[in-house]
Amino acid sequence: MHFASDNSGPVPTQVLESLARANDGYAMAYGTDPLTEAVEQKLRNLFEAPEAAVYLTATGTSANVIALGTLVQPYQAVFCSPVAHIQEDECNAPEFYTGGAKLVLVPGTDRMTSDALRATIENEGNRGVHGPERGAVSITNVTERGNVYTLAELRALTGIAKEYGLPVHLDGARFANACVALNCTPAEMSWKAGVDVAVFGGTKNGLMGVEAVIFFDPDMARSFAHRRKRGGHLFSKTRFLAAQMDAYLADNLWRDLATRANAACARLAQGLRQSNRVVIENDPTANMIYASLPRAWHQRATAAGARYHLSGGTLYNGDPDTLLTARFVTDWSMTDAQIDAFLDVALP
Amino acid sequence: MHFASDNSGPVPTQVLESLARANDGYAMAYGTDPLTEAVEQKLRNLFEAPEAAVYLTATGTSANVIALGTLVQPYQAVFCSPVAHIQEDECNAPEFYTGGAKLVLVPGTDRMTSDALRATIENEGNRGVHGPERGAVSITNVTERGNVYTLAELRALTGIAKEYGLPVHLDGARFANACVALNCTPAEMSWKAGVDVAVFGGTKNGLMGVEAVIFFDPDMARSFAHRRKRGGHLFSKTRFLAAQMDAYLADNLWRDLATRANAACARLAQGLRQSNRVVIENDPTANMIYASLPRAWHQRATAAGARYHLSGGTLYNGDPDTLLTARFVTDWSMTDAQIDAFLDVALP
Amino acid sequence: MHFASDNSGPVPTQVLESLARANDGYAMAYGTDPLTEAVEQKLRNLFEAPEAAVYLTATGTSANVIALGTLVQPYQAVFCSPVAHIQEDECNAPEFYTGGAKLVLVPGTDRMTSDALRATIENEGNRGVHGPERGAVSITNVTERGNVYTLAELRALTGIAKEYGLPVHLDGARFANACVALNCTPAEMSWKAGVDVAVFGGTKNGLMGVEAVIFFDPDMARSFAHRRKRGGHLFSKTRFLAAQMDAYLADNLWRDLATRANAACARLAQGLRQSNRVVIENDPTANMIYASLPRAWHQRATAAGARYHLSGGTLYNGDPDTLLTARFVTDWSMTDAQIDAFLDVALP
Amino acid sequence: MHFASDNSGPVPTQVLESLARANDGYAMAYGTDPLTEAVEQKLRNLFEAPEAAVYLTATGTSANVIALGTLVQPYQAVFCSPVAHIQEDECNAPEFYTGGAKLVLVPGTDRMTSDALRATIENEGNRGVHGPERGAVSITNVTERGNVYTLAELRALTGIAKEYGLPVHLDGARFANACVALNCTPAEMSWKAGVDVAVFGGTKNGLMGVEAVIFFDPDMARSFAHRRKRGGHLFSKTRFLAAQMDAYLADNLWRDLATRANAACARLAQGLRQSNRVVIENDPTANMIYASLPRAWHQRATAAGARYHLSGGTLYNGDPDTLLTARFVTDWSMTDAQIDAFLDVALP
Repeated sequence: MHFASDNSGPVPTQVLESLARANDGYAMAYGTDPLTEAVEQKLRNLFEAPEAAVYLTATGTSANVIALGTLVQPYQAVFCSPVAHIQEDECNAPEFYTGGAKLVLVPGTDRMTSDALRATIENEGNRGVHGPERGAVSITNVTERGNVYTLAELRALTGIAKEYGLPVHLDGARFANACVALNCTPAEMSWKAGVDVAVFGGTKNGLMGVEAVIFFDPDMARSFAHRRKRGGHLFSKTRFLAAQMDAYLADNLWRDLATRANAACARLAQGLRQSNRVVIENDPTANMIYASLPRAWHQRATAAGARYHLSGGTLYNGDPDTLLTARFVTDWSMTDAQIDAFLDVALP
Repeated sequence: MHFASDNSGPVPTQVLESLARANDGYAMAYGTDPLTEAVEQKLRNLFEAPEAAVYLTATGTSANVIALGTLVQPYQAVFCSPVAHIQEDECNAPEFYTGGAKLVLVPGTDRMTSDALRATIENEGNRGVHGPERGAVSITNVTERGNVYTLAELRALTGIAKEYGLPVHLDGARFANACVALNCTPAEMSWKAGVDVAVFGGTKNGLMGVEAVIFFDPDMARSFAHRRKRGGHLFSKTRFLAAQMDAYLADNLWRDLATRANAACARLAQGLRQSNRVVIENDPTANMIYASLPRAWHQRATAAGARYHLSGGTLYNGDPDTLLTARFVTDWSMTDAQIDAFLDVALP
Repeated sequence: MHFASDNSGPVPTQVLESLARANDGYAMAYGTDPLTEAVEQKLRNLFEAPEAAVYLTATGTSANVIALGTLVQPYQAVFCSPVAHIQEDECNAPEFYTGGAKLVLVPGTDRMTSDALRATIENEGNRGVHGPERGAVSITNVTERGNVYTLAELRALTGIAKEYGLPVHLDGARFANACVALNCTPAEMSWKAGVDVAVFGGTKNGLMGVEAVIFFDPDMARSFAHRRKRGGHLFSKTRFLAAQMDAYLADNLWRDLATRANAACARLAQGLRQSNRVVIENDPTANMIYASLPRAWHQRATAAGARYHLSGGTLYNGDPDTLLTARFVTDWSMTDAQIDAFLDVALP
Repeated sequence: MHFASDNSGPVPTQVLESLARANDGYAMAYGTDPLTEAVEQKLRNLFEAPEAAVYLTATGTSANVIALGTLVQPYQAVFCSPVAHIQEDECNAPEFYTGGAKLVLVPGTDRMTSDALRATIENEGNRGVHGPERGAVSITNVTERGNVYTLAELRALTGIAKEYGLPVHLDGARFANACVALNCTPAEMSWKAGVDVAVFGGTKNGLMGVEAVIFFDPDMARSFAHRRKRGGHLFSKTRFLAAQMDAYLADNLWRDLATRANAACARLAQGLRQSNRVVIENDPTANMIYASLPRAWHQRATAAGARYHLSGGTLYNGDPDTLLTARFVTDWSMTDAQIDAFLDVALP
């Protein structure tokens, strides 16, 4: 009954097997080994982007911020949602890697609307040197509140960015979950939808720690390699990052894992909907649910060993009927039995 | 015959087994899991430092520069050797993580002498606000040229730093090889020798990618956790870093691996010394040799598949008798047969 | 009829005379001259703060951001109004000088309320290393919308900062205008109200370009001198900054100039209120008015040579009756005749 | 007898008069006033560079480092002399404004030789992502040791930079003194000699505090305006910087002032050469002398009120015959009588 995060789950055995296979004698360091080069090519193939510049990093934050540092100047602005991971959960890493660029927040509670994005861009970057220049737009799909932008919504946002000549970064920590929810290809959710740089996340979807950063225009990536090294994110034994990604790509494991995680979420949502005391705040088509339940129900579930995060409030005082919002995240390894066990204890 | 670097070698099976053991169901993310906490305690025990603040990172550069960023201010200076890894091989990462501190180089070709360090410190930080303040001293053991500071030499350097009130950082990418060469304990080579912050390297000694940063005064570490996160170096699935370090510490595997690497180096040195055409430039008590051989010998060895780096010059033109200096690094996995095979082809 | 900004006005002759007096032979550079030291002492006296650390800089942005860089760490947050000069008009200088700290905006349209400040602080800095630490609170008086915090309001805000152990920075670009509006002393509006670091602005109140940064706790100022130099803001011929400030302090010229500017603003407000078509949006007790007038009136005034900034909209199309908001700023040199001339052309 | 620095001298009355003239009513702020635009055009004319992008700043450090920040990336290297002002006397400002670029020092004691520059560039930027990329070359004329590069020497250095595709920055804090020493035009000493960005210093040659930064290729200057603002170096009342530069350019005052300073230096050198106990270490064709005199002579001169800096050593102990090296700098205002008075007391 562990819904705290999809980065709390185990890794599939295929990943361990791939690491063992890669652990064969000597290999040149720093990404010049054959396996790394082969995996980069497989990613180009997956994204139908033969010219793309592809880089591996070990954490989602590093993937996002090295990409942003490559796209924007220190005196520019990055437009994003107020709840974007780069704004809320990366401890000023975007400011650090961009040399001090400003994250300008598009008013809203999760997904950016086209109107809000346009108005925010209009309002910024029009004060000469007094305010920051417009730099880039950053979009997250699956969003931090568990919603999924449709391809049409993505195209609308990237279209606005293009009007202003701004590159678009896609935070794809849950790229696979969104692809499955949209039943689309990686290309359709990235460059075909106007994305310039996509992070193809692996860590939250079953890898130990690997993300791929894909620049569809290699010219835009010119400084990435130096910025990755300068950030301390170039691994000497890159083959062990590549090995994880290699297993992830084989037989579409990435899609299979996300399909399982999303299915677990759907089962959880269906179960929660049995109670009219439960309000599900997002459209749980991916692998994350924000739902409000009575405090007493949370207490019961927690006492029984369920793990997940509450948004504000605390379990241990006040009215047992107060509705508290919790975040439930499902991962590839979650079984129906685990979900049903939670529903049994949580719901009366 | 692969002497290019000790980060080109494989990992011992104990590491893969430890990863498999750690891959058991759910674990809280970001270092709050029991395995990570247990490994941090084991490191405190190994270093005989019950109060130490211990952190894991995945790369040597990140370990060094997050530590330096914690120790020095942007308007200060870090004193180090002109060939230090932080100066030569980290692509301005120290400047990045310190917010622009200056590396002030202590004249010399490898090891810092006490006199040179003192003179350099004296010459810097005496110009009021016009020059940088004195910030910290950084020492590398094993050095980048394969030499090993004795404990007395370390104490002399840290003693000078203390005179000026400067904290001492130890780049320990090859900490284990130095410990074995000196036949001393980790405590003797770190805090007992006046080191304030030590990097206990694992990657170059057989791990996939894990280093431990150990602050012997936890107050000095106050900002490390935020700086690690801000640098994108906090892993969500920290258990898989901890698992590698756990295997490394079990039954003193770290010391066993370094002992093997150093022994391989000694065998290689002994073999090279059979020829009076070979000049070994360092004292190869650890796992690295800088030696000059005739160009023709390099050509023969390279043609036979030997891999290692030459310092300047090239193999493919000029006088076959010209002496070219090469760097040979041995790792834990190198067999006597591999070394002998190299000697057979390289030496006439 | 020039209401564009109080930094568009001339300087009083006393300032030129003081520069001429200071231009006497040789003086040691970089602030070690007697005049600079004398002026620093006069500022300590003015602020009734014999222990204060006092620094001169030439621009308001440099005064604010060097101060903030001294107060906060790169992984921390600065709490301020969404319309604060540091957020809107300094082109990411605060992010630059703090090494990438984040400005966290307190919801509102100008003045921060105690409740909003407390809620914003509460909401930030409670996510462990995932979000920034709480760093400092920055307040502007006179605000960017022409309002003046009362001493009680200041004390309430600084009291909340103190609860969280956060230092308070006061952007005093219009410090003198606020002092006059509140009829209080510099001490009452700064350290007696809980401010830790105050910028005592001179440039917008008649100097060519000098601001004083005053740390009431000198320990808090430890790195300011190095940060000022590193920012390129230490003048070699500091005597010419000191000379301006010396004239500013003599016979309370600073207060006299602000009194004139505020009086001009009051006269302008009184005049505008003659028309019921005019809506004044702030309480114009200092030297700035935000007022909405019909588009046609702006066109008439502009055609007659009046100069001021409109917030959005444009003069040259659409309905002549549309109300457009303009910012009118008065300075020490403005005459009643100039104000009346404007009123004559602007109002029917 | 004040030889401490040319930034210790007074300003010519023409500068005060120009400030008074500029102090006439209202002027738009931030460099959009007519005087600033006129002065920028006069600088283009002086440099015979109609397309040049011209910017004013108030300090030499800001002029240098905003220019460098515009030229190089954070992961690059700036090649300069070990005694360059940017290395020795700007407290890490270059690292700050470039976001952490590394100053790579060209071995030598003052002037860079072509061979040393080429060897240093060759040795750097050839390690892939492990070392910094080559970024720019920075040259100082007059050098920090009082020497003057000939036009041929400048062309040789810039020619090497061009071979590697590197832009060239000229620190011209004493640009005028070098121009006079070389009897050349500003164009000949800058773009005609291969310089891409020149700082035309005013502060050390008689202004209160103004430098002009001139980009001969305006495309190269694209980010300068934003970087200047972000550094806090855009003055609101720019007219008062422009007024100083306007006086400096009128009737070639800049050249007249430098001619006087250089002549004073020549007189001082001639006087010092009367004694065979004096060793002059540089070729004093500009306005700075490094000369060694017996300690006792320094004591006598200092006791008589002479002011200048000694390189190392102290006046007050040891052998009176020890030769101590002193730096003597002459400025435009120095009279023959002052120089002769010094010679009378210093020399027996």
